[in-house]
Amino acid sequence: MLPIAVDAMGGDNAPSDIVAGARTAADDGIPVVLVGCRDKLGDIGDLEVIEASEVIAMDAEPGSSVRRMKDSSLVRAAEAVRDGRAAAMVSAGNTGATMASALLRMGRISGVARPAIATLIPTPGSTPTVLLDSGANAECQPEWLVQFAQMGAVFAHHRLGIDGPRVALLSIGEEPGKGSPFVKEAHGILEAATIGGAEFIGNVEGRDLMTDGVDVIVTDGFTGNVVLKTAEGAFKALLTALLTAMTGRPEALDAAEVLTPELDGLYREFHPDTYGGAMLLGVKGVCIISHGSTNAKAMRNAIGVASEMVRADVVGHLTAAVAS
Amino acid sequence: MLPIAVDAMGGDNAPSDIVAGARTAADDGIPVVLVGCRDKLGDIGDLEVIEASEVIAMDAEPGSSVRRMKDSSLVRAAEAVRDGRAAAMVSAGNTGATMASALLRMGRISGVARPAIATLIPTPGSTPTVLLDSGANAECQPEWLVQFAQMGAVFAHHRLGIDGPRVALLSIGEEPGKGSPFVKEAHGILEAATIGGAEFIGNVEGRDLMTDGVDVIVTDGFTGNVVLKTAEGAFKALLTALLTAMTGRPEALDAAEVLTPELDGLYREFHPDTYGGAMLLGVKGVCIISHGSTNAKAMRNAIGVASEMVRADVVGHLTAAVAS
Repeated sequence: MLPIAVDAMGGDNAPSDIVAGARTAADDGIPVVLVGCRDKLGDIGDLEVIEASEVIAMDAEPGSSVRRMKDSSLVRAAEAVRDGRAAAMVSAGNTGATMASALLRMGRISGVARPAIATLIPTPGSTPTVLLDSGANAECQPEWLVQFAQMGAVFAHHRLGIDGPRVALLSIGEEPGKGSPFVKEAHGILEAATIGGAEFIGNVEGRDLMTDGVDVIVTDGFTGNVVLKTAEGAFKALLTALLTAMTGRPEALDAAEVLTPELDGLYREFHPDTYGGAMLLGVKGVCIISHGSTNAKAMRNAIGVASEMVRADVVGHLTAAVAS
Repeated sequence: MLPIAVDAMGGDNAPSDIVAGARTAADDGIPVVLVGCRDKLGDIGDLEVIEASEVIAMDAEPGSSVRRMKDSSLVRAAEAVRDGRAAAMVSAGNTGATMASALLRMGRISGVARPAIATLIPTPGSTPTVLLDSGANAECQPEWLVQFAQMGAVFAHHRLGIDGPRVALLSIGEEPGKGSPFVKEAHGILEAATIGGAEFIGNVEGRDLMTDGVDVIVTDGFTGNVVLKTAEGAFKALLTALLTAMTGRPEALDAAEVLTPELDGLYREFHPDTYGGAMLLGVKGVCIISHGSTNAKAMRNAIGVASEMVRADVVGHLTAAVAS
């Protein structure tokens, strides 16, 4: 397999944690190539580097940055995939710029109107729920949601091993007539569409996101991103409140210590880093978008996911699904 | 004070829990009148009843139900407020029908384009965040968000005691240029508008909902409802996962028992029932919309909130804020 191109300069903890995660992945047998400025990467062990002199900042305007900074680590990583030097790209950097780099350098899969970001939402006691679009397209047309459904179903199958995934439309009521005009129109189009190997089960609500009643939820990128961040924020608020409450009384603190394994497990289950990043579906290559706060372990996971998606030929399956 | 009209027939636990909550409120000195079918209410103690022979089901279509079922408890409750027989209405029934009853019978405050539902989102260690519109209008026009901001600020002041509340627009990035076309337009209008006694602090994201960085968040009713239900679902998923994890090992179960006061406190803090329901802002009367799962205690809280809002003359302050 070609190596996974890792944007060594992207993310709040770059380059040190990114390099550390990449080294662990390489030690575990996954071929990796770092993309960035060699002099700034510290101890990279045996890893090879694709030189890139520029870094697109986390808060930079995505479109213009990608067009202007042709020697940035993000653009070079996407080019490595396009040029057959890498099998996939992984970045914890500027999400918009990661997306724009992949889109502009790799190009769209034939027939895809708009690529979408698929994120995994933890579901206690069950496989995670695939949410897309979770932020690529702030404005969508209702008919794009059919492709989101088709691509999400392929992703759910290959990423999570779900056969015949249940696909639903996010709305504010289960009845087809509930929701915004956009959602009502999308409902009709989805009901009439063919989603290969998957079943459209109608509307779901925000409260269904973390339940096992649905496998793939499609929505526009604005709503999807708000939902994703609300769920992340709720997790953080609850965990903070829990830890604060548990450190009040001395007896509570002792009890909390006994519960450390359980609390650690819970933290891992719900933390956004656990699933190794989101995937941009609809471009001609595997592009994994990690959380900005990605640490070494999360980067190792993200590289693992990229490698799995390459081995499963997810891009080939996405191409077939959209063409059908 | 005139009595609070309580829809005795609305909610998953009606009429028993609703009547029980109303009786507790009355025992605590709040004047209450039940609205419903006297024969079905069981032991109502000293409470008076406004007769209503019909019940609008939880899943009935709101608009047509309210138009057709003129002798329903919801319609009669709204009429009691309109006719000066009650100071406010409270219902845990069909949300859409509650809204429609209030709107059709009480009417809109002069100048209000669309009433909005304001919900309180728990924020650990701080006052809750006011979210509106959390479901009244699935489709909004950007300029309506100015009135939502004005009304939300009045509500935050009188309901939560916040002076000079910080009002923000829900988006998918903090920069004014981020978001859907709707949000970008709303941002410009909000920046240019006057929100009496409040400060517009720009965009916030879903992750800010449960933080103390903002007091009032405005959004369209589709996004608001999705966000509300996502937060509720996340709370439920996390709590379920926590309880499951804690009942695995015997040692963990013992520790969890020690932590019962802390976990109870957390449950109370985050449970949707805690804050006694949402308020429909923009109609000519106090209308409190409780969660469908409202129990006796939550109904007692909701009646308390209704009474407070009447005493504070919130409707008068809303009228002044929108006219300014």
